[in-house]
Amino acid sequence: MHENKKYSKIFNILKSNNLTNWNNYTKHKFVKNIANGTLKKELYIKYLIQDYLFLIHFSKAWALLVLKSNSTEEMRVSSATLHALINEELQLHINTCKEYGISESQLYNAEEEIANIAYTRYVLENGYTGDFLNLLISLIPCVFGYGEIGLELSNVANKNNPYIKWINTYGSNEYQELCIKIGNMLDIAVINRLGNNFENNLKWNILNNQFITATKLEINFWEMSLHLK
Amino acid sequence: MHENKKYSKIFNILKSNNLTNWNNYTKHKFVKNIANGTLKKELYIKYLIQDYLFLIHFSKAWALLVLKSNSTEEMRVSSATLHALINEELQLHINTCKEYGISESQLYNAEEEIANIAYTRYVLENGYTGDFLNLLISLIPCVFGYGEIGLELSNVANKNNPYIKWINTYGSNEYQELCIKIGNMLDIAVINRLGNNFENNLKWNILNNQFITATKLEINFWEMSLHLK
Amino acid sequence: MHENKKYSKIFNILKSNNLTNWNNYTKHKFVKNIANGTLKKELYIKYLIQDYLFLIHFSKAWALLVLKSNSTEEMRVSSATLHALINEELQLHINTCKEYGISESQLYNAEEEIANIAYTRYVLENGYTGDFLNLLISLIPCVFGYGEIGLELSNVANKNNPYIKWINTYGSNEYQELCIKIGNMLDIAVINRLGNNFENNLKWNILNNQFITATKLEINFWEMSLHLK
Amino acid sequence: MHENKKYSKIFNILKSNNLTNWNNYTKHKFVKNIANGTLKKELYIKYLIQDYLFLIHFSKAWALLVLKSNSTEEMRVSSATLHALINEELQLHINTCKEYGISESQLYNAEEEIANIAYTRYVLENGYTGDFLNLLISLIPCVFGYGEIGLELSNVANKNNPYIKWINTYGSNEYQELCIKIGNMLDIAVINRLGNNFENNLKWNILNNQFITATKLEINFWEMSLHLK
Repeated sequence: MHENKKYSKIFNILKSNNLTNWNNYTKHKFVKNIANGTLKKELYIKYLIQDYLFLIHFSKAWALLVLKSNSTEEMRVSSATLHALINEELQLHINTCKEYGISESQLYNAEEEIANIAYTRYVLENGYTGDFLNLLISLIPCVFGYGEIGLELSNVANKNNPYIKWINTYGSNEYQELCIKIGNMLDIAVINRLGNNFENNLKWNILNNQFITATKLEINFWEMSLHLK
Repeated sequence: MHENKKYSKIFNILKSNNLTNWNNYTKHKFVKNIANGTLKKELYIKYLIQDYLFLIHFSKAWALLVLKSNSTEEMRVSSATLHALINEELQLHINTCKEYGISESQLYNAEEEIANIAYTRYVLENGYTGDFLNLLISLIPCVFGYGEIGLELSNVANKNNPYIKWINTYGSNEYQELCIKIGNMLDIAVINRLGNNFENNLKWNILNNQFITATKLEINFWEMSLHLK
Repeated sequence: MHENKKYSKIFNILKSNNLTNWNNYTKHKFVKNIANGTLKKELYIKYLIQDYLFLIHFSKAWALLVLKSNSTEEMRVSSATLHALINEELQLHINTCKEYGISESQLYNAEEEIANIAYTRYVLENGYTGDFLNLLISLIPCVFGYGEIGLELSNVANKNNPYIKWINTYGSNEYQELCIKIGNMLDIAVINRLGNNFENNLKWNILNNQFITATKLEINFWEMSLHLK
Repeated sequence: MHENKKYSKIFNILKSNNLTNWNNYTKHKFVKNIANGTLKKELYIKYLIQDYLFLIHFSKAWALLVLKSNSTEEMRVSSATLHALINEELQLHINTCKEYGISESQLYNAEEEIANIAYTRYVLENGYTGDFLNLLISLIPCVFGYGEIGLELSNVANKNNPYIKWINTYGSNEYQELCIKIGNMLDIAVINRLGNNFENNLKWNILNNQFITATKLEINFWEMSLHLK
């Protein structure tokens, strides 16, 4: 697929090393139920609440990437992503939840489920203990996975789909351009740090494993989202 | 119970605020199956492998407590606990697994289950983002829970129990004294930082919640240990 | 002075506890030489180069404050400050240095002097090891000191002053409003964490000392800036 | 010199790339004054006080190395070094200062000089932001420099030298063995992470620069120690 190629060369390698998990994530039942609009409203609300808490920690992880950057260019891309997450994506969740009668303070104080804790703390701890690549690699399954899902679903979804706003967020040009910008940063960052023969570098193995683990934690997040506790 | 009182005053308050979860953890089916020796051997091995990976991260969390310390006394207790974890508790797992034909390198490279990731990364991230108390409070459900379990089981377990070595590790005087040393440190640390009216301090609420979350993550770890993947 | 009051109540208390150091910093010979335009051009260039490296680390410290935040409001203010630092203040240094024939890559690879290392690593380490307040308190001498200096110098400086662009940056409404926003966040953060009787809280002492140390490190930075190595 | 070769191959390369600075550090006037016993007592006391504060942070940096480790072997060596620093080297300072009438609480609350802040915060921040190698490389100028000095001075110093206890600490077999253990860990860690052609790896440059900066910060520490404030 052309659109699957465009974010990043490195991402494509990681994905093709891990294709079954990747498909289990991006073609998960939860995604299909969003696509055809059959997802129950209370499950969508539950998901939005957990995803709000997810975004708080995910934003912090992008702030951590600023700290781990080796150039002002890396700092700028990470900081711009943080800015977009806090001021746009998080705001979408707040606004949508408000429509359903849930206040921001209720969101902030909601109980995090274990699947949520597992994912966000895994990413953050990778960043604190590891370096720029460890952190970025564990961030991209979420970024690019939502990019692929947004693109796919905005092609197939009905205009009357109750979740069309969510779909259009990730299918939007703004979001797709963010993915491309992050993909470029990723490709340059890997070459700069591991060299052109990065696949022979011992660290490449570790990065592959972290990509796989983050993908599994995404699947686990969807699983959680199919059940009311 | 007299023995439940002895580790720490602060721990007793946290526990009594959270008694149902605490009992679900310390009197879990996995613990009962250890106590009466009916736990299947393959589940015990699986548990040991996951617990080895747990201990790697748990040791790192104690190293992080050294960094977050405000006095040389806090540094000494944290560093002594780290030392004991690496040189004794971790070694017990390595030796026991060797008896079952599992090498240390197999242990180190085993796949971490999500319940394991959730718990250890939660604790470590609490430490990196938070302060000494945030970290210590999320460490103690493990430390004192195993202390209570070790004490209880060493009273009731049969000498021929196949898991007697595990039981005696946590029921041993050395382990119980470690708990008391850590409990003293906890009581002093809370008063020093939050004052005598610590229960009125806004931070106390956060600490309570972190204690509850860590306890739930312990229960979740036992649940994982009752099934082979 | 009315303008000295307006940033924050907490800042005013910290400043008045530490007035001699504060004046040694904000009325330093380097500042006076900027004010009357007598600072040698090569010292200004040297200062800009070191200050560029300073801003890289200072921006990272604001990213770290996002991680240490306890509310989305704190995350938003910290992230907006990071955004302004990277996209505006840092850009001013790059542009000005370009006028003097110094490229951004020369800036990025310039050798950091010890006075510079001392200050930025002190702030960052305070953030990593400590909490939101420890980090914020060690950031404000720079933020508010430059705010006061900008305000004072834009009142007294001649239009032909060769450093008028620098003066106007910190005297600008944008910069002053940033100071007020950060000052509000500081006042709320201290009350929320230490309570209304914050001056009786044991942590207040530590925060005072960190404010004093950061102020001394500012003085030391000006000292460095009066000599070509 | 045979003894200069024995700690580590990697260290020898770093040192030979940086020989002038290295000699300025290990053959500094302060060291010579210790060697011939002419250092003024009040300067020695001042040094011990600052070095006590240094050791608190240096110990924390070794705890951080436990967190950054990629193997249990790395964890064991780092943890053993932390243990030795807290229980032996720090204790030597406490005991010696007690002989001079200075209590541990006075030591802990002494004012850190800027040269001290610069060095320790540089090392810690390298560890927090960077990885195992960034941290270890900035730790070794202290470890191996004191090792070389201890060995050299214990050969030349008079038995009546007032600083013979200090000299013997670093010249002792225990300390020299610690250096060798750390040197082995360094050599293996570099090969494991950067490969056999580590000198072609882009990261090697960064590590060289961090070694140089840490060496300069050692020289700056000696300079500070030659003056009473």
